[in-house]
Amino acid sequence: MEVVLIGSGSVATHLGLALQAKGVTISQVYSRNVSNAESLAEKLDTSFITDISEIYKEADIYFYALTDTAFKKILRKIEMPGGIQVHTAGCIPMSDFEGFTTKYGVLYPLQTFSKNKPVDFSQVPIFIEASNTDVQQKLLEIGNLLSDKTYFINSDQRKKLHLAAVFACNFTNYMYDVASEILEGSGFMFEVIQPLIAETAEKIKTINPYQAQTGPAVRMDEKTISKHLSMLNKRADLKKIYKLLTKNIYNRHKEQ
Amino acid sequence: MEVVLIGSGSVATHLGLALQAKGVTISQVYSRNVSNAESLAEKLDTSFITDISEIYKEADIYFYALTDTAFKKILRKIEMPGGIQVHTAGCIPMSDFEGFTTKYGVLYPLQTFSKNKPVDFSQVPIFIEASNTDVQQKLLEIGNLLSDKTYFINSDQRKKLHLAAVFACNFTNYMYDVASEILEGSGFMFEVIQPLIAETAEKIKTINPYQAQTGPAVRMDEKTISKHLSMLNKRADLKKIYKLLTKNIYNRHKEQ
Repeated sequence: MEVVLIGSGSVATHLGLALQAKGVTISQVYSRNVSNAESLAEKLDTSFITDISEIYKEADIYFYALTDTAFKKILRKIEMPGGIQVHTAGCIPMSDFEGFTTKYGVLYPLQTFSKNKPVDFSQVPIFIEASNTDVQQKLLEIGNLLSDKTYFINSDQRKKLHLAAVFACNFTNYMYDVASEILEGSGFMFEVIQPLIAETAEKIKTINPYQAQTGPAVRMDEKTISKHLSMLNKRADLKKIYKLLTKNIYNRHKEQ
Repeated sequence: MEVVLIGSGSVATHLGLALQAKGVTISQVYSRNVSNAESLAEKLDTSFITDISEIYKEADIYFYALTDTAFKKILRKIEMPGGIQVHTAGCIPMSDFEGFTTKYGVLYPLQTFSKNKPVDFSQVPIFIEASNTDVQQKLLEIGNLLSDKTYFINSDQRKKLHLAAVFACNFTNYMYDVASEILEGSGFMFEVIQPLIAETAEKIKTINPYQAQTGPAVRMDEKTISKHLSMLNKRADLKKIYKLLTKNIYNRHKEQ
């Protein structure tokens, strides 16, 4: 099987590495950014282009790992090759391919990818959607090749998964980042809080997050909350977040 | 060594269980709530009181695992026994014991405790503070008995750790809870997002949270952000959180 990667960000990188590890040939990498294109092509021991008109036409599958805006731009410019066209985004409807080709689909890996952090793709849930049963069969093959967990999904479900992922991953990571900023002045390293982060993530495997909620907001510990708020007097941005999340946690648990 | 537990919440429960597992005698449990007191006393195979005037006077250490408000109430009511008085709170200064006794301290376990979720105390960082070197020695002994990681700390540092913990744990768990609410209408179980949660927590062991940040906010993917916001039209509370956190992530990464 021959594959072309359109995009050179972290999804393209990890997908490319995982496909290659399973024996798939990465025939070419495209990125409008030369150094990104070159660096990914080097990792995958393949060639790269920065001009989409030079795209290799004989691949079986073309993976688009792009932002929404970049994806739409490429669709307008590309002379569509004959293979299957597949994007990997959480929040782009499959129907965006309509009118450009008939063989298309989505392969959405629900995971957070950073370029320099290896990922065990076998544990990444993969969600697929296809324009016809042939494409579906092909994407299922690839899903099963890469991961132990492949699911069929529609664009609307995928959009919900993606929104949930923003909270569970991107916003969660930002909470870690805020914690690390607060620790900067404490004399302790970020490492000291890692067992807490690990246990917080571990806990919700056995009890649901609603039950797992702890802290001053859920126990209505107003004195602690007001001490924390006064500690944030010089950080209006964090104070606003603290207030808003505390109010939401309080309201969510008060209801029941 | 004999210990009395003042409080019957999750910290008292897990601390009591961990101490008992290491051969410490739990002589008594106090809680103003009968059924909580009874239930914890049963777990620890000891007696309980709901009237603080009946407190057992011969213990070596008294652990106060209470909210800030409940702690201050008890201090005003209790006839202070001769042993060492120790609270376990993140955000109460040690000096709150001043004037009540001379042998006091703090033993703060930096972890999230829920009653029905067992915790491996050996992996819980413990932060201690003491009114004198004898108390310090005693608390260090207990710290080392319970955990592989015991640190000395002052009240100001502890307050910062606690605030960082609210972001890294309590607010993070709330992000999981929001994700589970969003998934409710998707046809997928919360389990589907657990590998993502695990990887998000795992990642920051090797790269810092600033570097680990992914998602539409950091890559300035405005189309995705506006799709997400319109999905939250019926949840004004979550929309507000989404906007605020997105703005903060954007600003944090724009700076550099």
